[in-house]
Amino acid sequence: MKNVIFFFLIFFNIVGHTQDKTVIKNIFDAGFTKSKAYSWLDYLSNEIGGRLSGSYEAELAVKWTKNELDKLNFDRVWLQPVMVPRWVRGPKEFALIETEPGITFDVPVVALGGSVATPSVGIKSNVVEVFSIQDLEKLGKENIDGKIVFFNRPMNPKFTTTFTAYSKAVDQRALGALEASKYGAIGVIVRSMTLRTDDFPHTGGLTYGALPESKRIPAAAISTKGADKLSSLLKIKPDLKFLLRQQCKQLPDVQSYNVIAEKRGTTYPDQIILIGGHLDSWDIGDGSHDDGAGVVHSMDIMNLFNEIKYKPKRTIRVVLFMNEENGLRGSLKYKEIADKNRLNHIFAIESDAGGFRPLGFSFTCDDSNFLRILEWKKLFAPYFINVFIKGGSGADISNLRTDYNVLSGLRPNSQRYFDYHHTEIDTFDAINKRELEMGSSAVASLVYLFDKYGLND
Amino acid sequence: MKNVIFFFLIFFNIVGHTQDKTVIKNIFDAGFTKSKAYSWLDYLSNEIGGRLSGSYEAELAVKWTKNELDKLNFDRVWLQPVMVPRWVRGPKEFALIETEPGITFDVPVVALGGSVATPSVGIKSNVVEVFSIQDLEKLGKENIDGKIVFFNRPMNPKFTTTFTAYSKAVDQRALGALEASKYGAIGVIVRSMTLRTDDFPHTGGLTYGALPESKRIPAAAISTKGADKLSSLLKIKPDLKFLLRQQCKQLPDVQSYNVIAEKRGTTYPDQIILIGGHLDSWDIGDGSHDDGAGVVHSMDIMNLFNEIKYKPKRTIRVVLFMNEENGLRGSLKYKEIADKNRLNHIFAIESDAGGFRPLGFSFTCDDSNFLRILEWKKLFAPYFINVFIKGGSGADISNLRTDYNVLSGLRPNSQRYFDYHHTEIDTFDAINKRELEMGSSAVASLVYLFDKYGLND
Repeated sequence: MKNVIFFFLIFFNIVGHTQDKTVIKNIFDAGFTKSKAYSWLDYLSNEIGGRLSGSYEAELAVKWTKNELDKLNFDRVWLQPVMVPRWVRGPKEFALIETEPGITFDVPVVALGGSVATPSVGIKSNVVEVFSIQDLEKLGKENIDGKIVFFNRPMNPKFTTTFTAYSKAVDQRALGALEASKYGAIGVIVRSMTLRTDDFPHTGGLTYGALPESKRIPAAAISTKGADKLSSLLKIKPDLKFLLRQQCKQLPDVQSYNVIAEKRGTTYPDQIILIGGHLDSWDIGDGSHDDGAGVVHSMDIMNLFNEIKYKPKRTIRVVLFMNEENGLRGSLKYKEIADKNRLNHIFAIESDAGGFRPLGFSFTCDDSNFLRILEWKKLFAPYFINVFIKGGSGADISNLRTDYNVLSGLRPNSQRYFDYHHTEIDTFDAINKRELEMGSSAVASLVYLFDKYGLND
Repeated sequence: MKNVIFFFLIFFNIVGHTQDKTVIKNIFDAGFTKSKAYSWLDYLSNEIGGRLSGSYEAELAVKWTKNELDKLNFDRVWLQPVMVPRWVRGPKEFALIETEPGITFDVPVVALGGSVATPSVGIKSNVVEVFSIQDLEKLGKENIDGKIVFFNRPMNPKFTTTFTAYSKAVDQRALGALEASKYGAIGVIVRSMTLRTDDFPHTGGLTYGALPESKRIPAAAISTKGADKLSSLLKIKPDLKFLLRQQCKQLPDVQSYNVIAEKRGTTYPDQIILIGGHLDSWDIGDGSHDDGAGVVHSMDIMNLFNEIKYKPKRTIRVVLFMNEENGLRGSLKYKEIADKNRLNHIFAIESDAGGFRPLGFSFTCDDSNFLRILEWKKLFAPYFINVFIKGGSGADISNLRTDYNVLSGLRPNSQRYFDYHHTEIDTFDAINKRELEMGSSAVASLVYLFDKYGLND
């Protein structure tokens, strides 16, 4: 009898595997021929554009995505209210290096998100170049007071995953102004977070912590070519001056929304599978890779399921989070309401690493679930999607982690990501249609497997 | 005693693995910081440009690559003479659709490599649209005689590996003119080999087989947008006319060269490891992906070995083959001389699939060697290079196969390859520096492993 049961287990395992292979093939076929991701992203990027939290464009993006989701055969699509910060950049920033009176070098800069303005004439002072926050302490107030601090530690090119290089350099951008202000600095210039040498400065968030408004100093990113120029000029003219002018400001919080679409599961409606990306972006560029790609990947799941006529057994929720870039308010609000309603998210996946060719997924989960996920790996081998590793998921969903559920992040090829991230060239022309479509198919296939098999007990 | 031997085997296996991991890490570190691939390719693409066999540019490319290889600490760099075909495109081709007298539509075309010219006024005739060579037989001479045959079967987007889609569509380009001429066609138009819908026609080789010169008919590729336009106009105007004018011609063969660089092995000099790409390219565009990338990948191997101070035990040969695109004469000549000298190529790898992010390698070899290669796979996992499959190697090296050796092809991400392949936009700006560098490191790492371990007995 045992042998018979064993035989049936193996038999159903093989049948199951063959069936999964077919469904996943159908998903990828649909992805390469029926995906809406590329045309949606064309609209989001080219017709709506950059959509910083609290902006007119963010409001348009909320309305438009809700409208598109309404066409996809969900049971319910709604807006979840959330108050978001509203920071505005103002007119284009300006900066120059003055080696001596009358000899100047324009350099490309952008204000960091959340930064205060300079006085309307700008700030102008000597520059002290540092390579880490620790350098500030070594230099001390006597060498920093009244000056502009220039953080110039590059991203390390030796990390294959560029996100790792980013994470090890971004403290300069996030904390530089807060820390430098403690030593009397009057402003901060940060080398752009990219591995390229080019003319495009990269914006991104900073924090002033609990610093009172009067103590906050302006901070801007300088392009890598600008940073190299400044660094080399400092070597021959240590007393050169730097002028920075920016007119950004923080306005009162405004009402915005997470956009949520739900398809109730036919068998286990209380088990929720969440697919998400963030709807807001920075204001320069149009946020095609960060995170327009994640938005359209998430929306495309139900489109592909509709195309292959797949009816989910568990409840599928697509969540387009607001305000990932400068506050995570959408994520926090979603979590708050989910907890209040005791929602059970068995699986959540975020696409927020660009629209490039997917290489695989990272997972936050226990070993039992991870071992089972590794068995699924072979189902993705025909598509050369082979990276299944433990690691993070995504900024918007990481707070949904429980002891038993599984979180995941799509892992596209990261080599080009920081060529575009938070710049004016993160635009639709940097998107490749097939690579974007493969992202939709990869996520849809993983969602299909979680929907079919649920969590490991 | 057996146990002791077993213990030592395991011990050396672990030590070996750790050492290999370190060497490969050093190779990738050097790749991301000391590679010359990108600056070499800048020169080859932007200073020399497209380099069709027999052209002035091909001659320059031979001289320049020899000169660069001379700087790399090889024992010997030489030119291996080979006669190559010399086909010239002449002035820009011209084509239009005429739906009725005075109503015309310009469409982008390029002559296929090796095609004969049209008369100087062009050819103008009715068009018969087909989707395969088999369609010709179905239509028969009565429907084809005196007309222009339009091959319009698109590449199938459902193949994840775009090379597979290419291989299943390219018979139209390679054989279309030869086959259509048998039914009295006066010319051939072929839908471009790409998955994109755009305005760039894709050239590429054709064959007339043993057809006498007088029977050869001109053939050109039409852009996918042009093909769609022609197809839709044919539906409403089946008797429309197509005008094609091209002035290409086949000149007498000329002298050219394979460029070969050799570093003698310290321990097994008679065992040769070959790394290659092809130096010629098509004449439109500058051949950055096809196959400038393969050329600089091949050259970069010794540069990276020099950087990490690795001295190969086996003989390393870098071969830049001439005339892959329209004749394979370089490959044939190399094989002829190698056979004459009874050279023993234990391993040969070709990079001829673009400069995109490497995903892995394909191998032609026996199972014993393949099993051992699969053990090496984990050494590439930190770089998310996970595709190790049986499959082809490369057009230039496939004739070096023996019963016992191993051939391999680098397998980069193929999603974008046919956006550029054989077009005027296969140019240096379509190259990403880090992705190109990863290709060098991937090939160098595999060469290191074959150099260290040799073939499996």
